[in-house]
Parts: sequence; C-alpha cells; structure tokens
Amino acid sequence: MSENLRLDGRQVDQLRPISFEPGIAPNATGSVLVSFGNTRVICSATIEKRVPGWMNAQGVEGGWITAEYSMLPYSTLDRKPRDSSKGRVDGRTVEIQRLIGRSMRAVVDLKKMPGMTLWIDCDVLQADGGTRTASITGACVAAKMAFKRLMNDGVLAENPMENSVAAVSVGVWQDLEVLDLPYVEDRDADVDFNVVMTSAGEFVEVQGTGEEATFTQEQLDRLLSLAKKGIAEISDMQSAALA
Amino acid sequence: MSENLRLDGRQVDQLRPISFEPGIAPNATGSVLVSFGNTRVICSATIEKRVPGWMNAQGVEGGWITAEYSMLPYSTLDRKPRDSSKGRVDGRTVEIQRLIGRSMRAVVDLKKMPGMTLWIDCDVLQADGGTRTASITGACVAAKMAFKRLMNDGVLAENPMENSVAAVSVGVWQDLEVLDLPYVEDRDADVDFNVVMTSAGEFVEVQGTGEEATFTQEQLDRLLSLAKKGIAEISDMQSAALA
Amino acid sequence: MSENLRLDGRQVDQLRPISFEPGIAPNATGSVLVSFGNTRVICSATIEKRVPGWMNAQGVEGGWITAEYSMLPYSTLDRKPRDSSKGRVDGRTVEIQRLIGRSMRAVVDLKKMPGMTLWIDCDVLQADGGTRTASITGACVAAKMAFKRLMNDGVLAENPMENSVAAVSVGVWQDLEVLDLPYVEDRDADVDFNVVMTSAGEFVEVQGTGEEATFTQEQLDRLLSLAKKGIAEISDMQSAALA
Amino acid sequence: MSENLRLDGRQVDQLRPISFEPGIAPNATGSVLVSFGNTRVICSATIEKRVPGWMNAQGVEGGWITAEYSMLPYSTLDRKPRDSSKGRVDGRTVEIQRLIGRSMRAVVDLKKMPGMTLWIDCDVLQADGGTRTASITGACVAAKMAFKRLMNDGVLAENPMENSVAAVSVGVWQDLEVLDLPYVEDRDADVDFNVVMTSAGEFVEVQGTGEEATFTQEQLDRLLSLAKKGIAEISDMQSAALA
Amino acid sequence: MSENLRLDGRQVDQLRPISFEPGIAPNATGSVLVSFGNTRVICSATIEKRVPGWMNAQGVEGGWITAEYSMLPYSTLDRKPRDSSKGRVDGRTVEIQRLIGRSMRAVVDLKKMPGMTLWIDCDVLQADGGTRTASITGACVAAKMAFKRLMNDGVLAENPMENSVAAVSVGVWQDLEVLDLPYVEDRDADVDFNVVMTSAGEFVEVQGTGEEATFTQEQLDRLLSLAKKGIAEISDMQSAALA
Amino acid sequence: MSENLRLDGRQVDQLRPISFEPGIAPNATGSVLVSFGNTRVICSATIEKRVPGWMNAQGVEGGWITAEYSMLPYSTLDRKPRDSSKGRVDGRTVEIQRLIGRSMRAVVDLKKMPGMTLWIDCDVLQADGGTRTASITGACVAAKMAFKRLMNDGVLAENPMENSVAAVSVGVWQDLEVLDLPYVEDRDADVDFNVVMTSAGEFVEVQGTGEEATFTQEQLDRLLSLAKKGIAEISDMQSAALA
Repeated sequence: MSENLRLDGRQVDQLRPISFEPGIAPNATGSVLVSFGNTRVICSATIEKRVPGWMNAQGVEGGWITAEYSMLPYSTLDRKPRDSSKGRVDGRTVEIQRLIGRSMRAVVDLKKMPGMTLWIDCDVLQADGGTRTASITGACVAAKMAFKRLMNDGVLAENPMENSVAAVSVGVWQDLEVLDLPYVEDRDADVDFNVVMTSAGEFVEVQGTGEEATFTQEQLDRLLSLAKKGIAEISDMQSAALA
Repeated sequence: MSENLRLDGRQVDQLRPISFEPGIAPNATGSVLVSFGNTRVICSATIEKRVPGWMNAQGVEGGWITAEYSMLPYSTLDRKPRDSSKGRVDGRTVEIQRLIGRSMRAVVDLKKMPGMTLWIDCDVLQADGGTRTASITGACVAAKMAFKRLMNDGVLAENPMENSVAAVSVGVWQDLEVLDLPYVEDRDADVDFNVVMTSAGEFVEVQGTGEEATFTQEQLDRLLSLAKKGIAEISDMQSAALA
Repeated sequence: MSENLRLDGRQVDQLRPISFEPGIAPNATGSVLVSFGNTRVICSATIEKRVPGWMNAQGVEGGWITAEYSMLPYSTLDRKPRDSSKGRVDGRTVEIQRLIGRSMRAVVDLKKMPGMTLWIDCDVLQADGGTRTASITGACVAAKMAFKRLMNDGVLAENPMENSVAAVSVGVWQDLEVLDLPYVEDRDADVDFNVVMTSAGEFVEVQGTGEEATFTQEQLDRLLSLAKKGIAEISDMQSAALA
Repeated sequence: MSENLRLDGRQVDQLRPISFEPGIAPNATGSVLVSFGNTRVICSATIEKRVPGWMNAQGVEGGWITAEYSMLPYSTLDRKPRDSSKGRVDGRTVEIQRLIGRSMRAVVDLKKMPGMTLWIDCDVLQADGGTRTASITGACVAAKMAFKRLMNDGVLAENPMENSVAAVSVGVWQDLEVLDLPYVEDRDADVDFNVVMTSAGEFVEVQGTGEEATFTQEQLDRLLSLAKKGIAEISDMQSAALA
Repeated sequence: MSENLRLDGRQVDQLRPISFEPGIAPNATGSVLVSFGNTRVICSATIEKRVPGWMNAQGVEGGWITAEYSMLPYSTLDRKPRDSSKGRVDGRTVEIQRLIGRSMRAVVDLKKMPGMTLWIDCDVLQADGGTRTASITGACVAAKMAFKRLMNDGVLAENPMENSVAAVSVGVWQDLEVLDLPYVEDRDADVDFNVVMTSAGEFVEVQGTGEEATFTQEQLDRLLSLAKKGIAEISDMQSAALA
Repeated sequence: MSENLRLDGRQVDQLRPISFEPGIAPNATGSVLVSFGNTRVICSATIEKRVPGWMNAQGVEGGWITAEYSMLPYSTLDRKPRDSSKGRVDGRTVEIQRLIGRSMRAVVDLKKMPGMTLWIDCDVLQADGGTRTASITGACVAAKMAFKRLMNDGVLAENPMENSVAAVSVGVWQDLEVLDLPYVEDRDADVDFNVVMTSAGEFVEVQGTGEEATFTQEQLDRLLSLAKKGIAEISDMQSAALA
C-alpha cells in the first residue's frame, strides 16, 4: 500500500478527517455538526413527550425513535429541489431515514424512555459522499447528548443508550477496496457497502449492493474487515467528542 | 438437526415448497405467479418502447428497468388499504421496489435493450413472509420469458439477460439460524437478512438488519452460507420452470 | 340472425364464456377469479369489524359496503400506470367503484351486518371490455362466499344477502344491438349500456350513454331486453358456482 | 292527480319554476345563472385555443369539451368544505363533471371547432336537489351563447351545436313517481333517475339507480315518460331564453 | 386635477362605482355580491358551531374567523384553472385569505362568539383589479348581516362586531398617485398599496410593495392619505347597504 | 428612555447583536449564516442557468429570482414537523418566501442576469423572532457574494445588484414602540411591522398588521422612524461583512 492510488491522496484504508461541532442547533435537546471530509451534516435529537399513534393503538409500551433525513438544496453543486416543493419524499430519502431509525433503535433500550419519541433529524449542509453514514455517526452523538441532558434534568432515570453506534461506507472502486468513499469514488464504484456497527464491535446493519455488478464472498469478507477497522476509529472519535 | 424446531415442521435449512405458474397475465410480455409456500406473488415483465426522461436528458444510451411492488389489499389477514387511497407509497414499498430494480439491473445488460424500459410489476396476492425475495425470484422468470419472446419476435437481436437472479431470506429466530422465514418467524426474528445472488453464485445484494438487536461476524457467515444453499436450489427450480 | 356478424363469431345475443374460480385470495373472507372471455377480475370480499366514521358521527345503525376497483398495470396491452404512482384515482375508476358499491348495497340488508364494513376489491388481471360488469358479477359471488363463512363461524346470525346481483353490458355496434361487448366492440360502439339486475329480475342500475351519439326509446327497449336475457343466464351460472 | 301529495304543492308531473339569467359572468365567452326552484347554478362556457395533450399525441382532429362542476361552500345549509382545501375532488363531483361533459359532446360536432377546447364550468350557488340536471340545462344555454359569439366574431365558420340538450331528474318518492325532485324528495327517494335528452327528443344519457332498492320494467317505462314530458318543457324554455 | 389622466376617465382620487347586492347566497348566514366597477365578488359569512382543533387543544376560549378566497375559473379573460384541479392553493391565494381573516378578526370580539367559527368565503365572479380589497369590504357586510341574524335568532347575546372594516388599493401608476386601481393600472403600477381601515378611522393593515421598484416616505404619506379618503367613502356605502 | 423596560435589557430603539458568518454552505454560489441575537438563518444564493417556464412562454427577457424559506424542525423549542412530511407548504411560509423574493427583485436588475435564475434559500437554524427580516438581510449578503463570484468568473459582465437591501421588525409591545422584536415580544405585540429598505434609504416593502388590534397614523409614523434607524445600522453591518 506504499503507492497512493486515491484521488485525494488517502490510503485505501484511511478515513477522511472527521470532526464534531456540538450545539449547532441550541433549541434541540442535543445537536452536532458532523464532518466526514467535505460531507457535513447537521444532526439533532429532540424529545417529544408522546409516542406514535400505533403504539397506543397496539398497546406497545416504552418509547420510539423516528429519523428524518434531508439534503438542503444548497448541499449539492447543482441545486437540489426541496422535497416540500415536490410534494413528496423521494425513494432514496425514505431508504436513508429508515436506515438511520433502525440503527438508532438497535442501541437504545426503548423501554427506558417510556411515553417519549426521540426525533433524529439529519440535514445535509454539504454533500460529498457518505451522507448516510455520517448521519448515523452524528445522530449517535446528538442522541447521547440528548439523553445525558434528560438524565441531568431528572426526566429519565436510566440512560437508554449504553453503547454507541457508528457507520462507514466501503466499496470497490477501480478494482481497489477502499474505505469511506467521497462522491467521485462513490459515483464510479462497482460495489457499494454501508456498514453500521456498535462500539461493542457487533453489526447492526450490513447493506451491500452491486449496482449493475456483482461481488464474491471473498470481496465481501475483505470489505467488512475494512469497515470494521474504520468504525473502530470513528467510535473512538465519538467518545472523545462526548467526553 | 434431527429434532424439528420450526412451527411448520421444516428443517432449519429447508425451503418452503416453491412453484411457478407461467402466463398468469397474458397481456404482459412475460408473467408468472410465483409461490413460496403461502406467499404468492403475480410477477410480470412488460416492455415499453421508450426510456425515462433523465436518460434522454443525460444522453445515457441503452435501456432501463423499473420495478413496482404492491400488496393487494386482500393479501393480508387484516385488509391493507391501497396506496392509491392513501395518496402515497409507503417507505417499505419504496425500499422493496428499489431492491427489485437493482437486482434485475445487476443481471441484465442494459446496453442490449436500447430505447426500451422493462417494467417489472410484483403484486402480492397472498402474504406470508418473504414477499420481496419471492418477488425478485418471480421477476427473474417473468423477465426471462419476456426477453425470449422479444428475441423470437425479432425485436431484440441479443438476449440482454444471460444469468438469472434469485433471492431468499435467512434470519435468527429463537436462537436458530433458519432459511426462508414465513410471517410468524419473520415477525419475531432478531436478525433478518435478504440475500440476492446470481445463478453464477455471485452476490448481487446483501441486506442484513438487526431490528432492535445486533449480530456477530460468525452469525453473518453462517447466515450467508444458509442463503447460498437456498438460492442454489431456487435457481435450479427457475431453470426448470423456464425449460 | 343466421349470419354471423361479430368478430369473435358470437351471435348478437350470446354471452362470452363465463367462469368462476373460487378461493383465489385465501386471506380474504371470500374471493373468486371471474372470467368473461378474456376479461379476468380478481374479486374479493373482506370483513372489517368497524364502520366508516360518518356512520358513527350520524348515528346510523347497521353496516356498510365499500368497493375499490383497480386495473393492474399489466391488464392492458399498453402498460397502465398505477394510480398510486400518479398520486390520485382517475375519474373512470371512481365512477366504477361507486357503481359496484351501490350494486352490492341494493341486495344486502345492511341492518343485518351491524358494526361491520364489507370491503369489495376488484382488481382486473386481464382487460378485454366489460370489466365493470364482470366485477359486479364476481363481487356478488365473493360476497356470498364471505357471508356464508361468517354465518358458519357464528359471526352473523342471519344472512344479509338473500338475492344475488349480476351485470352485463349491451350496446349498439355497427348498427347491431349486441350483448356483452369485448374491447374491440366497446371501443367503436355508438351507444353503451351497463345494466345491473337482481336474481329476482328487478333492475338495480341502468346506465345508458350515447358517447358523441344519441339513442331512441325503441333502441333503449331492445337493449334492455337483451340485457335481461344475458343477466338471467349469468345469474344461473353464479348459482352453480356457489352450489 | 286532483289531490296534492308533494310538499311544495306541485303536481307529480310538474317542474319547479325554471329561469335563466344570461351574462352572469361577463369574462366568459357565454354564461348564465340557471334556476330550478331554489337550485341555482352559475354555468359558463369559455373557449381556449388549444386542445388537450392526448389529442395532439394521438393525432385526433377537431376540438374538445371539458366540464368542471363544483358546489360553492355556501351552497348548502351546512358549509361544504372546498375541494381545494381537501386537496382532491370527491367521487360524486367526478361523476357529475364526466356526465356534463358527455352530455355536451353528444350535441356538439367537435370537428367543427378545430384546435379549440370548450370549458364548461358549473358552480352551484344554492343547492336544493337536481344540481346536475340544472347544470346540464344551463351549460347548454351558455355554450349556445358562446358559439353564437364565436360565429359573430368570425372565429367559427359553422355552428358546431345544432341541437340543444336538457336534463331532468325523476324518481320514486313515497310510492309516487315524481318529476324534478327537490332535496327533501331526493334524499328519501327509493329510485333516482337522471335523464338527458336532445331537443330532437332522443336520449343522450339515462342513469337510473335504486339506492338500497330496485325497480321494475314498468316503473322504468313510466319514469322515462315523465322525464320526456319535463325535458320537452325545459327545451322550450331554453329556446325562449336564447331568442 | 382638472385634466383627466386615467384610462377610465376617473379623477386620481375617485373610486369606481361601488354596489352591494345582499342575499346572493341564501343558504349562507349572511351574503352579498359586492362590485367595485367590473370587479365583482360573492362574499358570504357562515357560522359553524365548533372551533378549530388547535383552540380546544390549547384551551383558547371564544370563537374563530377563517377566510377562504378563490377566483372562479371564468372570472378572468383567460380561464383560470381551479385550485382543486391543481391539487393545491397557490401562494397569492394563501396571502389573500390570510389578509381577509386578519382584517375581520381586528374588528370582531372573538370572546363574544364562544364555540363558533365564522367562515368568510370570497369567490371572485369577475376580476378587474382590487379583488382582495373588494373581498374585505364585502366580507364585512356579509359578516354584519350574519351577526344581526344570529342576534335576532337569539344565538348571540351581544354583537361581536361593533365597528366595520373596509379596504382599498392605492398605487403609483405612470407617476400618478391613484385610488382604487383597475387591472390595467395595477398591472403597470410601480408601487402598490393595500390598506385596510376601520370605520373609526384606524389602520388594520398596511401593505405597501414596490414590485421591482422602491418608494419614498413622502410617497407613502400621500398614498395613505388617498387611501383614507377612499375608505371613508366606502365605509359610508357599507352603512347605507346595511341600513 | 433611561429606564430599561425590555426583558433582554435593550433600549427600545436598540438592535440585537447582529453577525454574519460567510461560506457556511460551500457548494452554494454565495452563502452566509446570519444571526440577529438567537435567531440564526442559513442564507444561500445559487445560480441556475435557466429561467422559469413562464418567462420563455411569455417571451420575457432577463433573469429571475426565486426564494424558498423553511424552518428546520429543530429551530423551535417544540419540534416543528417538516413541510415535506405534511406534503404541503403552509400559508405563513408561502407569505415569507414571496416577501423575500420581492425584496431581492427590488434591488437586482434582472435584465443584467439574462437566462439565469438566482435561487435564494433561507433555512432557519434557530428561531427567536424576526426570522423573515433576518432572512432578507442575510439573503442580500449571500446574493452580493454570489454576484461578485460570477463577475470574477466572467459569467456576468455587469453587477446586477448595485444597492443592498435589509429588513427589520418594529412593533407595539406593552405600549412601547420597540425595534427588532424577539419571540417573547413578538408573541404579545399588538401591532407588528416588517419593513424592508434599500441602502439608499428608500422603502421596498412596508407590512403593518394589527393582529386583533388597530393602529393610528401617529403610531405608524413613529414605527417607521424606528425601522429606518435600525435598517441604517444593519446596512452598515452588511457592508462591513462584505468588505
């Protein structure tokens, strides 16, 4: 790996610079501006003191987590029309917000937040690949901040979120298996994985896709190893940001 | 595995009875009613002689494949309201139709169907778990029939679809790793995988989710082995149905 | 009428082959696949144990019947876009589902199904003219099956549906007054009637339209006679299918 | 018929007072405020110098007629929410505007208005039963005025509308067969017919419905006679209003 | 001001002929057809015996006033598509109905109409500039009529509307400061004001806009003087119409 | 004014601390995060090289400016549902984006940006009153930055925006006439003005509203003086930020 093959000068197993700016949205219960290189996402966590109608209807106890994701119109080089002006949310957005919601629910004990909904909002300020993995990573930090505040305020007795969760993309780009793809790599990748793991090293979600391509068991194994390495590093950065 | 632990009497690595009834919708270019046990899906493939606007706008050559998925209102025990009466398509539906589309595009050479859109429609007649994997499996058969007909009619010079594609679910249910989950297992599963592979044994898509749970590398490995075994069997049944 | 003038070789007063395949959708309370020649419609009847909000609001007693009709996208030679992808139900569909609902309510005693809604769903699998009349005819069979099951299960004390109801189209095509028009006749007809009658020989609905044409009293009389003859035959076939 | 049985003192075969106030909407090509007793409808006819997209796409020559119908929110005793605030047009409205459109197209030679769309708008100012039949009757007068103006202005060479068209309701109310039902009779009627005829005495549309009831051939015959008598009278009033 | 510079022969400070035709919509609680020259608007006031959900939710006492505004499709020389056929209300309409609602609430004591919503509906029959100011002026008359009727019927103990409210447009057109602009002046005006005042001479709303232009303090002062003069005259006409 | 009466300790004619953070959204042509105290808005200006369809259809030359405004869900203390999840843009939002658009068009010479649309996006990150006036003020800075960049890049020959534009709120709160109202004052104000002026001291827009109240000529005069003072100060800060 002595020779550098990536356009931005990174090693194949090297993350982009990652940073967290807490408190970006003071009216949220917790919030952070997360950056993975030029990808920047406003992540917020807001508590609402009621649960969705279906929980009451079905008599389900505990709380709920819902995530919404949006690309701000100026996040892309060509302005992206707002979902509200189109009157509907597009398929990619739906997929991403469902993924964020599942990832958060995997590490939160919903029973410990009875009668509450945690709203996760991820708004992309600048898009350069990996917005969904940055969103999950930032959402975890925002949620941790929110739960800490609710414990301090005596609203919650126990912390519903012991572990943290982080995500990263890996893929096959120009026959290289690479970590944390920026837009130019992502656009041309043959295989694209998004991997979500806990700070305890367990998988939450593995989504691997060959867009007009396929992949072998060996590729899958190597890509997951790469993702594990990246997530372990991100996990440490989350802890540092929350300390 | 001598002791039977599944509710329907199957071994953990045993598929449900799978069958294909071709020609269910004679006005489609190709169609099949696919059954995975009590899960039954009408799959059709229809050729439209134009491509989406964005292909013309961006100057992309070749053809396109779009998939639509729907659960008929009487497919579930409690009647499911139609998307049209709600005025919008729900998130789960969007996710599934995007998955079907990607799976088909992975095994079709779009360059060999210039100026055409292949519409894949999957309408669930009876739902008992695994409707998305049955849909992909049936869609492949319907598409193969459609392409054969277009070759016979001289509309296509070359077959755009050499390989076939099939899908199956695997998961962790009551600490068992099981193949092809019916609704009662799917509902209670801790880990749920949908795996799509080609008849050549390569992966097209791996989607593994721990819904309010996580999974280890070892579980992932064993679940993928189980899926491979199932898909190899399904692939043979597809070939037989098309013979 | 010795000389045969219709494209499919039928006499002017002859029905297409009609058949009923019960149990097509096992999760519905009752279901049937009805065929009028190449027109094939999945008809189901599902009981929901509540009534529409307006009945509670207005203090109306008894139950209700609601019908939904849809043409599956592969039912036509050119693929028909789904209502859900257009975000609204078109005018023709609205007209047809209102007609099906009224036809069923005319032969069901709503007082005898208190607190229940009977959902009638008609999905056209293959369209070749007369889909609305086939839908009504099939919906009657599905509903009869559903009520029989509810009586057997002890959910209903009395049968709310004594009579049956059936429907047929008649029209003026190339100066011939013809029964049960397939698409090619329907498309070119000057006058188009849809007639709904009970098994007791009474009218439920008469809808006669001169599309960019008019018709006389004498034509109306002869067309209604033709419809009566057809409906009497269909009524017998319904009874046989339910026996 | 010496004894008077109707609530408003009319004979069973007697129309309500009918009047036409032309020019109610001066910016339309033709317009009239039509009254059938307390039912009052603003009817306008406006020419647009283009045809619907499907006519160009299919290469259909001539012009087109489209009708829109709406109940103004203050037309009913309880305020009726606007379609626009509900975001969709309800089923009854769709049915009525399709009926108005067909009725007008039956008496207009679309070939004689090439490249033009005639928009018929019917807005109910006060509703007391029979709004659809009043709408058709008024729309005919507005359209005649519009065509006359277009001929005078040299826009049209020939009059596309030789005959006129009128409509009336008949029904069975408290075992009486009655003409031109106001709301209180319509609400309780067992059988409800809307009949549309030309000034030449031919039928354009017959819609007879037994709402939760049925009707015999004899009832149908007598109701159509009643309708004919009423329409002949209305037809004369239209002529007088246009003279 | 001896020389006449306006296209319709008016002095710069002269109103168009204004008239009120009460009772245009008899099913409303109060209604009037108001004319400002060729601008004619149907204004109605209807009482509904409940309040919006947010009032109950927030525990707000008293009643509420909501206004809806619409241009009928034949009100303009080129037919204006209905909001309902577009599926949404456009921005200009939203702005106007919010303005009408605020204007009415400024002169009505909502505490004196507990548990009631007053619906103001303004439908433009003919549009020639100033439809929003005519709407407010007519809405006031309709509301006064409605409250009078409710007091007579004993539904209200006290009159919630002591003062009246009226509105007029003023603007800068071809360097002239003019009162009550018709469409041809409004279209070309550099500065456009809508002013709403009470019969007591106080302002309710001042909206002044330089569309692709600006205006000075001196212009603002002179335009408001012109508006005051006009509103005082309109206020007298309202009183006369209600006497 | 020696005694301090405002909750946040300001004088009645004192602005909140105002700041501009340029470059917040690097993919936009120009962008700034503007703060008026705790009200913070992301303002961006993006050039699109085409104009709205109606300009081409009507043959209007030059360019266009469109503004979109949104409150991010975490901008308020109680989470605000997204417009996209409601499927429509609410009335207040429509009003504000129209105001921003008009304000920008008043100071930009559209003829000097032929064939281009300038998209102004204002997303409220934190809301504490005066979001619309902060949006206009920030939008001006973002647009100036965008035009400067387009001139530097040789895309534009001349600067279309000579003057700048700024806005502020004034109102009557607890009988005090105050400048730049935060949420707690705005909520309880009897009279609320939004004033938009150019750097040359001319008015662009004056919107004064008495919500369930009225105001006199004298109050109007004093409030406009207060606004002028504030806008002159803001104008200087804009210049400093752009220097």
